[in-house]
Amino acid sequence: MNYTVVNQKIIHHFVKIAGEGNVFTDQENMVKYSQDETEDLRFFPDVVIKPKHVKEIAAILKYCNEHHIPVTPRGGGTGLSGGALPIKGGVVLSLERLDRIIEIDERNLQVVVEPGVITENLMNAVAEKGFLYPVDPSSKGSCFIGGNMAHGSGGPRVVKYGTIREYVLNLEVVLPSGEIIWTGANTLKYASGYNLTQLMIGSEGTLGIITKIVLKLIPQPKHNLLLLASFPSNEDACAAVSAIFRVGITPSALEFMERKGVDWVREYDDINLSLNPSAAAFLLIEVDGSNLDLLFADCEVINEVLEHHQCLEVLFADSATQKEELWRMRRTMAVSVKSNSVYKEEDTVVPRAELPKLIKGIKMIGEKYGFDSVCYGHAGDGNLHVNILKGNMSDKDWNTQLKEGIKEIFELTVKLGGTISGEHGIGLVQKDYMPIKYAEINLNLMRGIKQVFDPKEILNPGKIF
Amino acid sequence: MNYTVVNQKIIHHFVKIAGEGNVFTDQENMVKYSQDETEDLRFFPDVVIKPKHVKEIAAILKYCNEHHIPVTPRGGGTGLSGGALPIKGGVVLSLERLDRIIEIDERNLQVVVEPGVITENLMNAVAEKGFLYPVDPSSKGSCFIGGNMAHGSGGPRVVKYGTIREYVLNLEVVLPSGEIIWTGANTLKYASGYNLTQLMIGSEGTLGIITKIVLKLIPQPKHNLLLLASFPSNEDACAAVSAIFRVGITPSALEFMERKGVDWVREYDDINLSLNPSAAAFLLIEVDGSNLDLLFADCEVINEVLEHHQCLEVLFADSATQKEELWRMRRTMAVSVKSNSVYKEEDTVVPRAELPKLIKGIKMIGEKYGFDSVCYGHAGDGNLHVNILKGNMSDKDWNTQLKEGIKEIFELTVKLGGTISGEHGIGLVQKDYMPIKYAEINLNLMRGIKQVFDPKEILNPGKIF
Repeated sequence: MNYTVVNQKIIHHFVKIAGEGNVFTDQENMVKYSQDETEDLRFFPDVVIKPKHVKEIAAILKYCNEHHIPVTPRGGGTGLSGGALPIKGGVVLSLERLDRIIEIDERNLQVVVEPGVITENLMNAVAEKGFLYPVDPSSKGSCFIGGNMAHGSGGPRVVKYGTIREYVLNLEVVLPSGEIIWTGANTLKYASGYNLTQLMIGSEGTLGIITKIVLKLIPQPKHNLLLLASFPSNEDACAAVSAIFRVGITPSALEFMERKGVDWVREYDDINLSLNPSAAAFLLIEVDGSNLDLLFADCEVINEVLEHHQCLEVLFADSATQKEELWRMRRTMAVSVKSNSVYKEEDTVVPRAELPKLIKGIKMIGEKYGFDSVCYGHAGDGNLHVNILKGNMSDKDWNTQLKEGIKEIFELTVKLGGTISGEHGIGLVQKDYMPIKYAEINLNLMRGIKQVFDPKEILNPGKIF
Repeated sequence: MNYTVVNQKIIHHFVKIAGEGNVFTDQENMVKYSQDETEDLRFFPDVVIKPKHVKEIAAILKYCNEHHIPVTPRGGGTGLSGGALPIKGGVVLSLERLDRIIEIDERNLQVVVEPGVITENLMNAVAEKGFLYPVDPSSKGSCFIGGNMAHGSGGPRVVKYGTIREYVLNLEVVLPSGEIIWTGANTLKYASGYNLTQLMIGSEGTLGIITKIVLKLIPQPKHNLLLLASFPSNEDACAAVSAIFRVGITPSALEFMERKGVDWVREYDDINLSLNPSAAAFLLIEVDGSNLDLLFADCEVINEVLEHHQCLEVLFADSATQKEELWRMRRTMAVSVKSNSVYKEEDTVVPRAELPKLIKGIKMIGEKYGFDSVCYGHAGDGNLHVNILKGNMSDKDWNTQLKEGIKEIFELTVKLGGTISGEHGIGLVQKDYMPIKYAEINLNLMRGIKQVFDPKEILNPGKIF
């Protein structure tokens, strides 16, 4: 069924709902909202609406549902799977003006927040009260908490603290019908029917629009220590990862970085760090907790494990500045890769002990198809971001052969017990690969759920399946 | 639409699938499988089947789906919401012979297990390898891990370690059609479409039958310390609960017990413990971790908090025997209440700082309707089990008025930001109270999801909504 073309009359209706200054059709906004951070994709909306209130969103959705107009919700626009791109045109509904931290409940260690709050702002606001909200994607300075929710976001501290999934207690959601529901309760436990809260997380804006979020907070750990360990090979570094957990230590971060990524980011971001010339791969390892002596003891145990895994050297961050610099290096890696080469990023995840096999396999597949890659990621979770570089590949091969190569990478990932996205979501760019992981019956169950929530398929059409 | 009556021909077909010795219609089995641990409910199945293999379950479901025969899956039969009772007759499908721990994966800290494994057996098996599976309901010695999954089970250690929801990575599920799926991947992160794994947890056997479970394990903490603190009133004890978290300590258990419960269990279980005569309520507080000095320091901080909350005295468990005895006291409380009075158990949960208001309100509602109650539960999660005692209430009031009183308790729970079940599930006995918490639109979304998975409504009919 075709969608209704957005005409002036429809736009006039949107203006009535959201106010004159909050409905955009100008070229500059159309360009801005036609893309996110997913490589070089571009899809233009017909109109961008920036509502301020839940009731406005309800009115917009009700109207669009009745008139069969596609609505693509959008957070910070930092997505890496094309999830916020309006591939069927219509409305881009930006949540940027729903940007209030409504309440930090110090008695119950909870926060109520709107979806347009930048994740880092939320983290800082609760930190001021002595609390930790630990889910910090690399894009934390610009991504929105609502987008994190829609993608089931992770980040480096998932390894100890879990993904956003473990912190969401309750959600206010506007359904395509314009009805507003709360999905659950503001409680740490819930056994009261199907868990609609958990179903919304990672649903990528295809089931409803999240307008309020109740999150659990935890006490802020007092101390942390940070190490950078270098290894002669990717496999050695990856093998050390699961060994650390097996001695009973759970680091608060355990990040893997390939040499090329580190070299590029040092150039890009002017990071002052001398590296062992034989180092081919690195692990950034953080431990945190309430007692510094205990953390030092953990580091000693980690050191022993590293020694048994061909570790070349360990750099112990001896100041807040050095810690900040090492973290910046990790966080800026995506941007520095982007600035060096045309690339495609894949978000593989496997059981963590399978990482050595995964990275070895990725490099072999690259050789077969003629592409190079830079890998880094949240190794403690088995989550490896694979940046495939165009390098010397011809445009023709890049546009045709590459897809086969990516397919092989995902087939390997699935064979190792993993899946095709750990934290970036399926969106548009991974959609075609879903059948590698899921049987048709799984996809049909998902399609069925979509029908229950959004029978006219107005919400973020063309995504996931 | 009426269900098909199970006749000899149908039973003969089940025998062909599951084998002669595994299909039961005798009186003894019908009685046994007509009840669980939910007060005095009884519903008789037409036939009990105890399959051994997934393929047998698939064949049974396919046949029942085609012939419209109700199937009620059953775990250990320890449920407290009537979830395993075959209220429409038909088949009780007992998972008791799917009792294998298939693999403890020490490299990835994961375990693959069948649903019929007793939770405590699983905990012991992984503990032998140095791992912790921390979700231990009071019934851990007899409940099944599959039943825990179906109800989103909790237990005392949820407060630090989370519910079963945080440990489930992947599920093998047989759908009513007889198709067998895996819901996700064996990974710590998942952003690959709707999370069917999370949807299955707490779905109470209404969407599919769980036949394999992949769980995350964590390192076993080396030490723990246990305190019993006594208070002059319920409200004082409950107020101390959230205060402990606010000083930055997360205990590994924080249980509340009313005096009457403690007195009854001491009689019932011959527990040797002298109590302060003024004590009206108790908190059982456990801390665990890798460093004993740190735990002692935590206990000192907790002690200070308790002193500020009118704590009468603190008993520090000074031996493994005493720890075991205190835990036994808590775990045996449900049975001892059961042996003392006709009762109904409700499973309220609120944000934890609202506990003082909840317990005060429960007592006032009891006065209004003429019932007494014994409350205990996982106070650290805001989860209070309310055991309503028949006492001197007339049979007539018990059968008519009580329902109004329970309704008021749930209305209070919801008003305080909570919900009507934290870990026992809705099943049969809480079903009528669902509209107190959920709008019709929420229930319709749940019904819609049910239709997607089980369009002929053969699986555990008449439960949840």
